[in-house]
Amino acid sequence: MNPTLGVCYYPEHWPEEIWATDAARMVDTGLTWVRIGEFAWTRMEPKPGQLDLAWLDRAIDTLGNAGLKVVLGTPTATPPRWMIDKHPDMLARDVSGQIRKFGSRRHYCFSHEGYRAESARIARILGERYGRHEHVHAWQIDNEYACHNTTLSYSEAALSGFRNWLAQKYQSTDALNRAWGNVFWSMDYDDFDQIDLPNLTTTEPNPAHVLDFKRYSSDQVIAFNKVQTDTLRPLTDKPLIHNYMGRELTFDHFKLGADLDIASWDSYPIGFLSDRLEADEADKTSYLRQGDPDNQALHHDLYRAVGRGRWWIMEQQPGPVNWAPWNPAPLPGMARLWAWEAIAHGAEAVCYFRWRQAPFAQEQNHAGLLRPDSVAAPALAEAAQVAREIKDFGEVIPAQGHVAFLFDYEADWVFGTQPQGADFSYFRLVLDAYRALRRAGLSIDILPKDADLAGYKLVVAPGLAIMDDTLKTRLAEHDGHVIVGPRSGSKDQDGAIPVPLPPNLPGLDATVTFVESIPPGAQDLLEDAGSFVHWSERLEGTANVTLKTKNDHPALVTSGTLHYLAGWPDRAAWDHILKLIAPAAGLYLEVLPPGLRVRDTATHRFAFNYGAAPVHWRGIVIPPAGLHWVDI
Amino acid sequence: MNPTLGVCYYPEHWPEEIWATDAARMVDTGLTWVRIGEFAWTRMEPKPGQLDLAWLDRAIDTLGNAGLKVVLGTPTATPPRWMIDKHPDMLARDVSGQIRKFGSRRHYCFSHEGYRAESARIARILGERYGRHEHVHAWQIDNEYACHNTTLSYSEAALSGFRNWLAQKYQSTDALNRAWGNVFWSMDYDDFDQIDLPNLTTTEPNPAHVLDFKRYSSDQVIAFNKVQTDTLRPLTDKPLIHNYMGRELTFDHFKLGADLDIASWDSYPIGFLSDRLEADEADKTSYLRQGDPDNQALHHDLYRAVGRGRWWIMEQQPGPVNWAPWNPAPLPGMARLWAWEAIAHGAEAVCYFRWRQAPFAQEQNHAGLLRPDSVAAPALAEAAQVAREIKDFGEVIPAQGHVAFLFDYEADWVFGTQPQGADFSYFRLVLDAYRALRRAGLSIDILPKDADLAGYKLVVAPGLAIMDDTLKTRLAEHDGHVIVGPRSGSKDQDGAIPVPLPPNLPGLDATVTFVESIPPGAQDLLEDAGSFVHWSERLEGTANVTLKTKNDHPALVTSGTLHYLAGWPDRAAWDHILKLIAPAAGLYLEVLPPGLRVRDTATHRFAFNYGAAPVHWRGIVIPPAGLHWVDI
Amino acid sequence: MNPTLGVCYYPEHWPEEIWATDAARMVDTGLTWVRIGEFAWTRMEPKPGQLDLAWLDRAIDTLGNAGLKVVLGTPTATPPRWMIDKHPDMLARDVSGQIRKFGSRRHYCFSHEGYRAESARIARILGERYGRHEHVHAWQIDNEYACHNTTLSYSEAALSGFRNWLAQKYQSTDALNRAWGNVFWSMDYDDFDQIDLPNLTTTEPNPAHVLDFKRYSSDQVIAFNKVQTDTLRPLTDKPLIHNYMGRELTFDHFKLGADLDIASWDSYPIGFLSDRLEADEADKTSYLRQGDPDNQALHHDLYRAVGRGRWWIMEQQPGPVNWAPWNPAPLPGMARLWAWEAIAHGAEAVCYFRWRQAPFAQEQNHAGLLRPDSVAAPALAEAAQVAREIKDFGEVIPAQGHVAFLFDYEADWVFGTQPQGADFSYFRLVLDAYRALRRAGLSIDILPKDADLAGYKLVVAPGLAIMDDTLKTRLAEHDGHVIVGPRSGSKDQDGAIPVPLPPNLPGLDATVTFVESIPPGAQDLLEDAGSFVHWSERLEGTANVTLKTKNDHPALVTSGTLHYLAGWPDRAAWDHILKLIAPAAGLYLEVLPPGLRVRDTATHRFAFNYGAAPVHWRGIVIPPAGLHWVDI
Repeated sequence: MNPTLGVCYYPEHWPEEIWATDAARMVDTGLTWVRIGEFAWTRMEPKPGQLDLAWLDRAIDTLGNAGLKVVLGTPTATPPRWMIDKHPDMLARDVSGQIRKFGSRRHYCFSHEGYRAESARIARILGERYGRHEHVHAWQIDNEYACHNTTLSYSEAALSGFRNWLAQKYQSTDALNRAWGNVFWSMDYDDFDQIDLPNLTTTEPNPAHVLDFKRYSSDQVIAFNKVQTDTLRPLTDKPLIHNYMGRELTFDHFKLGADLDIASWDSYPIGFLSDRLEADEADKTSYLRQGDPDNQALHHDLYRAVGRGRWWIMEQQPGPVNWAPWNPAPLPGMARLWAWEAIAHGAEAVCYFRWRQAPFAQEQNHAGLLRPDSVAAPALAEAAQVAREIKDFGEVIPAQGHVAFLFDYEADWVFGTQPQGADFSYFRLVLDAYRALRRAGLSIDILPKDADLAGYKLVVAPGLAIMDDTLKTRLAEHDGHVIVGPRSGSKDQDGAIPVPLPPNLPGLDATVTFVESIPPGAQDLLEDAGSFVHWSERLEGTANVTLKTKNDHPALVTSGTLHYLAGWPDRAAWDHILKLIAPAAGLYLEVLPPGLRVRDTATHRFAFNYGAAPVHWRGIVIPPAGLHWVDI
Repeated sequence: MNPTLGVCYYPEHWPEEIWATDAARMVDTGLTWVRIGEFAWTRMEPKPGQLDLAWLDRAIDTLGNAGLKVVLGTPTATPPRWMIDKHPDMLARDVSGQIRKFGSRRHYCFSHEGYRAESARIARILGERYGRHEHVHAWQIDNEYACHNTTLSYSEAALSGFRNWLAQKYQSTDALNRAWGNVFWSMDYDDFDQIDLPNLTTTEPNPAHVLDFKRYSSDQVIAFNKVQTDTLRPLTDKPLIHNYMGRELTFDHFKLGADLDIASWDSYPIGFLSDRLEADEADKTSYLRQGDPDNQALHHDLYRAVGRGRWWIMEQQPGPVNWAPWNPAPLPGMARLWAWEAIAHGAEAVCYFRWRQAPFAQEQNHAGLLRPDSVAAPALAEAAQVAREIKDFGEVIPAQGHVAFLFDYEADWVFGTQPQGADFSYFRLVLDAYRALRRAGLSIDILPKDADLAGYKLVVAPGLAIMDDTLKTRLAEHDGHVIVGPRSGSKDQDGAIPVPLPPNLPGLDATVTFVESIPPGAQDLLEDAGSFVHWSERLEGTANVTLKTKNDHPALVTSGTLHYLAGWPDRAAWDHILKLIAPAAGLYLEVLPPGLRVRDTATHRFAFNYGAAPVHWRGIVIPPAGLHWVDI
Repeated sequence: MNPTLGVCYYPEHWPEEIWATDAARMVDTGLTWVRIGEFAWTRMEPKPGQLDLAWLDRAIDTLGNAGLKVVLGTPTATPPRWMIDKHPDMLARDVSGQIRKFGSRRHYCFSHEGYRAESARIARILGERYGRHEHVHAWQIDNEYACHNTTLSYSEAALSGFRNWLAQKYQSTDALNRAWGNVFWSMDYDDFDQIDLPNLTTTEPNPAHVLDFKRYSSDQVIAFNKVQTDTLRPLTDKPLIHNYMGRELTFDHFKLGADLDIASWDSYPIGFLSDRLEADEADKTSYLRQGDPDNQALHHDLYRAVGRGRWWIMEQQPGPVNWAPWNPAPLPGMARLWAWEAIAHGAEAVCYFRWRQAPFAQEQNHAGLLRPDSVAAPALAEAAQVAREIKDFGEVIPAQGHVAFLFDYEADWVFGTQPQGADFSYFRLVLDAYRALRRAGLSIDILPKDADLAGYKLVVAPGLAIMDDTLKTRLAEHDGHVIVGPRSGSKDQDGAIPVPLPPNLPGLDATVTFVESIPPGAQDLLEDAGSFVHWSERLEGTANVTLKTKNDHPALVTSGTLHYLAGWPDRAAWDHILKLIAPAAGLYLEVLPPGLRVRDTATHRFAFNYGAAPVHWRGIVIPPAGLHWVDI
């Protein structure tokens, strides 16, 4: 597939007189796609039932006639003010019970049936009008589900929905009481209508209660989305897409993705580094204007799985953003590097957000490809360069990665409910493991638990909280090497500790006898290199000890090609562990200069310099924000 | 008295088939006591008025027949869900006015009369059935009063109760207005029903208002407890116990203890160090897997006073817990050391919490003596060792400590209301002084303000906010040396500054002319050694200056054996001050190796190594987590 | 004008028997003024409509007959409890919607019409009785508007008032929608009654919405005050004063000051340093007992402008206060230094707060000139010394400062709404620039945007968010040098980014193409000296580059005498920039020893040693907390 570029555009923000000029400049820049419409509900339907789509017709025609392909968004992330009058109880409530009011966006509760019907209604109106439109080549459903912490709502609608969901799942309160262990503190129920949402309890609620509420809430996002996809499917043959937000784990993207054709995500490398990534201060400073060197790649690899191979960047940071605690500007070249890195990971399209910086409202300090005065911002030239380069490059042929990395949303819900250590985060555990594989020059495929693992010489699965017997057997019988743990298999379906105790892997005689969380500044030293940090488990059993702690406890135990990792390795420990296992698995580890990261396609190895200094690689010098590719 | 061991057990959590095996293993381990029942209300009374106690009969019989003595808990810390339907307004409200909902434990407001009656009802049911039962040898009332910040409730029941309490106390609003100084900001009332709870005021409320609300709230805990003790007294001759929580100062334990026979506390050394103790980072790391070396001893000495000599550990940490920010595992040996240290301080019994780790609900990551799969966890062998050792040791004969340490709950309420320095905490001030006495090898008796001080060569009383004339005279006339201050006598009964100004001690001409709180990083240097930190007072008067600041202000002034301390000494300053005073008081200070702590009984000096390295003491080497005793 | 001293006194707090003695001691101390009454509403009107002013008559007579001039306060900052029964909805609501309850002070919503009428009523009662009283020489209206975060209220009264205010301003929702850019996220309204207050939105509300709410709220403070000044004007010829609080920018003091005769502020140097000033740790420690060396001067210069030349210190810290996180005591001499510094900046009067420390209620730990036992506290002698010294000194003749510093409340509202960097604060930016000018020995006049700038060799205007064309032209055409920026002119009246892009200054071809906020630990290095911190802009255009970054971007650009500063200079950078510009502007920079600050009157240069060590200046040694003056 030949990769393409695009941009997000808001014709409703600008005088109609300049639409054609904008469209022509987009085409001149080499862009293929233009996403529109996702926040324009009040322009589409200024008053309830009173539609005004003529401007949208003209906008689509103007863009399409210029040669662009339109991605049309359903505007359900921004219900108009009049919608609140129709459905006053559609607003979500936060964990303290406060109504989350109108006045920004995403002001709806996923559980609210009335708003679901409204979403179907507007999707039908758009689908009927544009489903077969010659210029509409894809659809975006809603926008950044879960953003602004909106998956969990503590509204009346959610309460009612949750009770029904529990009744469906458990059929009797006795079954629920048993599953949750409500005997523990006399928390038993005799009626589903006695069960409240798990907020504002005197001390922490039953973790099984919370876990089910998280599952319920994830299901509501999926159901909300499905109302729209079900509506649009009969009306269009074009792919349906959602644009997921970075580090957003509150609903199951694999499940939601199953109802869509393409996954996309919104990549803001510098904003994310400032806003939502753990990193030591030195790394935060080194990568201040480049973004974390691994976080984008992780999401690329994740969304490739969510999209079952088809994925985009729907929003690519082009310059400083407005929403992170601090908002430095990218190094010159990063808007090119980020796009190419996505392409190397298999992106079909990379769309910059946004065409022109809006001088008004919440995101007025968010850069675009154009400044508010329509002069080119720095990223425009970089986008044009990428456009030329991808045209020259031609087809990007994806290849299976070296490593299968199992990823599970439910694991985050389990550990988020009872982290046991204040800094234990599933995503962070995953990112640390992923970073180690990247530092070793490996290309990774992130996969759901039920994915086919054929052909992978190495499978890595840290923190897979809940593992059923089928999965355990598949991993134990896998041809390649498999690293499982820590905390994998530590919970059953009800979120309780299983007996026999974890990990209980076929053929591997190892039992976690107790665990400890470790505060910052402390660690459990390993022999040879590095330490366990954050988390360490004590194992007993007869499995071979591949690596020990300095206190002579097993750190990594092995049976054949199956390894169980009994802690959270720091950087040095991960590097050491990979050196122990990868060669045995038949993987070659490339020692990369600091800041450099690589990704293989079927034909090329791409290298990206995230560092602030030039690096030498394969005989050439790659400058900061530079990239290079070589034939494989 | 010969010390004993016990364990906390939840027969309702396990199949009845394994109760007998469990009981037999408890006996084999050498345990004497088994505490049960305190969270089992829904099993005792599944629906309102519909009792089911047959299982409890069988459980008690099974345990008792195996040779164990049962401590039976009243289940009032966990009212069933149906109770909320009967008394919807029994739920407490937090400081922001939010209802603290059902779904965990301690979900009741102490002021609620309806729930008090329910508590009496269930206590009567249990008392009538088990008050003379051959196997029930003690009772626990409720569980960990105040835990989860439950003493203060801002409910309607509390509001109504508080108004009545104020009307009783002051009789007229004029008297209240004068006592509180309401003239200050036109805060006068003309009707008790105008008085609100002291939350959510525009800026801070009158501290006298807050102090009275804290007194009121403490009184409600005591009244709540008394309803149960009054119910049980006619029905049983067995001792009534409550298990207090560590560092819990929101109600007056001395007053509550007066209605009970034995005090007990729940000792989680590693959890507390992570969760609720100030310590410098080096100490936090050094004692990560041992717990603070002084905090347990302080509580032991405190609860010996609360129990008027009779006290237990009702819950002893056996391994990693689940509720602290980080939960490392104890060093091997600590479950033995902690028990022995309690015994050396006079504990009649030490009960481990809990027998078997529950695989479900909130505390599923809380270790027990057994793992969830019934295999022995590390602490089981340590408990068995202690059981053998105490059998060999025989009687532990308590002795009066070297030092009387006056402790006052009200002082915490006063300083907590107006700390004047953001890090001024009464408990921390107390712990710092207590640590210094321990570092000097002294054994301490913590006592209430009205205790008999006969025989004590040294009395220490930091931060005794409110001192009446009787106390001042007793201290001034005490035979031994007395160190009072800082901030002692700084408030009158209404929480105002007394005139004449503090400390106003008989025979000691010293007046605090002004005070300063000192931020971290600053200090008031003392001559010879150390500094005042957190707090420094300026004194004038003719009293002898025993120690000065480098700025030539009095730091410690003396009249005969009465000393007033005009600041908060750091470690070096405390050590220096004790060297100045203790020898004059006739006390011998033993220089202890780092991490070692000692405690004397009438016959032995016990030494406990809290450090992470072996120490030499009295010719032997004590390993980490080791202990040793010598004849006195 | 000959400066005078005064004190704040609360006759209602003390037995009437000691009033005369107090008054005599005030006179003996050399005080001229005594402020009374501002919190005494319940003593003036114990029940609704039932007045009791006889005590106030006697208090005023006692003080006046002793030779003191009375400043009489209206008691509207402390409405009595019965007022809440009359107007239950007069209480403000905080940003989370919670009622801010009775029980402290400032418990009213500025928007509430009923309470405004009550304020007029009590002002009329006092005005009629004391407006022509021989001993009442000035009035204070209310007390510390905005203190305790009270400007913004989210009450029903505020909601209703805000809707009306918006309707008045915009006339149509279409106009409002356009001005706010509500198209952005479909936030359009069709009815003013649809518009809510900008709190509790799902994510951040439209910044234009917030900015208008801040403007509305500022207007309500001014309207509230005007009700009282309109009431008093016909009843008295004495000056009307308000006592503003330090670092309080939530309402426009220039606008409020226009309705008054004299501005005053409440100066708590040590409290402010602990509570509300950014400073590096070394400075926080160095100035712990002196207060920030520049913050008082900045406020003096500001309130001189607010009072159009006439200003006082209404409350001067005399010793430790009670309300900061930490409350150390002033160095001996500081209560003198602070008073003299105010006088050197043109204060007509300096009143110490308070006469005698109150032993009760919220401020019982706040020092006074007397201790609670009526013994002199340290500041009394310092006040007496100042009284003698100012008598000897005679007239203080103000002079125009060297530098005009433009200050704008609205800029704080704009940047506070969208700081773009988590530590971007307008006040901090202003203080940093002001500090640099002070370090250079310059005397500064702070002025509003529309002030006459004639005669100023240098004008400094950092962060002037909104600049109209008139102002731009005035600055461009100003005779002296002008430094504008960073972020100046970056917003239009609606809070949006203007096109043409900022700064868009006449004759200066420079355009901000993008901006970046910079986190702590990072910086944008400048050539020669220092760095930009917190904020850096990228400029393009043909203007002369006076200073560059090390990355070769313009940092300071110049056209003639007009300079635009493209970032936030650190200390070294500011010093360097002033060395580049001030000599060209004809200003002489004096290199001052660390901790020393100076201020010029028409006849003298005053020097104040804020440092903790003695300094040499003009041939003499000034001790810590010392001051000195020389003829100019």
